[in-house]
This record gives sequence, C-alpha cells and structure tokens, in this order.
Amino acid sequence: MNKIEHIGIAVKNLDDSNELFSKLFGKSHYKIEKVASEGVNTSFFKVGENKIELLEASHEDSPIAKFIAKKGEGIHHIAFDVDDIDAEIKRLKNEGFKVLNETPKKGADNKLVAFLHPKSSNGVLIELCQTIKP
Amino acid sequence: MNKIEHIGIAVKNLDDSNELFSKLFGKSHYKIEKVASEGVNTSFFKVGENKIELLEASHEDSPIAKFIAKKGEGIHHIAFDVDDIDAEIKRLKNEGFKVLNETPKKGADNKLVAFLHPKSSNGVLIELCQTIKP
Repeated sequence: MNKIEHIGIAVKNLDDSNELFSKLFGKSHYKIEKVASEGVNTSFFKVGENKIELLEASHEDSPIAKFIAKKGEGIHHIAFDVDDIDAEIKRLKNEGFKVLNETPKKGADNKLVAFLHPKSSNGVLIELCQTIKP
Repeated sequence: MNKIEHIGIAVKNLDDSNELFSKLFGKSHYKIEKVASEGVNTSFFKVGENKIELLEASHEDSPIAKFIAKKGEGIHHIAFDVDDIDAEIKRLKNEGFKVLNETPKKGADNKLVAFLHPKSSNGVLIELCQTIKP
C-alpha cells in the first residue's frame, strides 16, 4: 500500500456538495466523472497528495442510494493506491480479509479497483486501486 | 487546508485492531497515546503522507463508546492539517460551517484541534489540526 489514494464520500446532491466542499477547501473540484457501471456520478477535489471523491447515486438501485438510505450522507470508503492489485488481493485474502471482487474491475479515474468487505476490516469499506497504465 | 493529516477510525479493542491494521498495511503502528481529556486510547500508522489513527474508548462515557454504540466500528473523522487554526475556524464559520469548539483544544499527537459538526459538512465529522510548535 503506497498511500491513501482517495476518500469517498456519499452525497445526496453532487451540485450542492461541490459547493459545500469548495467552501471547505477554498477551491473547486477539478473533475466530474460518471461511472455508469457503478451507478455513480463523481467529482474530485485534490488535497495534498490525496483526493476527495464525492459520490452521488445515478439511479435508485445504486450502492450509494442504498448506503445513504441506511446510514445517511457521510464517508463511504477509503481507497489505497497499490502497485500490483492482483498481488495485494492475494496477500490480503491470505491474511484473512474478505475480498468482495477477486477480479479487479474498472473504476473511476482510470483505475482497476477491488473492495474489502467492511466486516473483515473494522467496519471500514476499503478499496484497493491500481492506475491503469497506457 | 494543507493536507489530510489523519483519518480516525473507531475500534472496540485497540490490541485486536492494531493486529488487523498491521496485516492490512504490512507494518506495525509506530505510536500509542492515551488522551485522557477525550476519553480515548489511540494508535497511529503511517501511510504515505497521512496517518491512520485508531481510537478506542477509555471509559463508558467516551465519545468513541457512544459512536460505536450508535453506528458500530468504522471511520469516525477526517482531520485536515492547517497552518492557523484560529483563522480557519473564523473562515469556515463565515462560510456557514458549524464549529463545535471555537476555542481549539489540545488533542493527540501534539496538536491543537477543533471540530466541525457533521450536520454542516455532509455527514462527515471534520477535525482541523495545527501542530503545536515548541
């Protein structure tokens, strides 16, 4: 694990939250991206070496809609940057973590991603992400 | 806001969680600190330029005990490093954020800290922290 790549925050309305976080950070988001496969509209802010990713549900069955219905708006996941996602999945599985998708999938921001189940990691939804090289 | 200083994670048992997060990061915590005034025992891991702070309640009335009773273990807050905490409190108050303690208090890790109410920041408990200079 090289570093925290981003923190994902579930929000009800991306426009409203972009405005709120712009006030918090004193600067605007630098990117908007729709990830249809995950049912999310995202925006990104840069803070130091990390990013904050705001996540809005793009339809009713989106995991973000379900998360907000259950827990309200708030921190959804922490993503860690890794060099070799397949090796990390294998290592963490051997350490007893429950990997939600053992085959990495395409996420936002040009990444391959995999998730660890919060039940195996102290209630924290953890994302592993590896940048897809051109 | 210079960078994310740390992410605070509420845990039931610090020893168990130190072991779990050591497996996750492939390295041990580098520090344990008790903060009696906040009712917490903490441990710190370094990841890139950020820290992960595990928080265990040190007594029944600790805010961490209450958090876990209500929401379970998981991410508790995000802390941002600032140069001038008094100026940031004033700026954020003017922007409409609700500041929980307008007079900064002494936190873990040699910091002056102040918190923003999650209701004014998308369900996220935000800590501002400024390193106390010798």
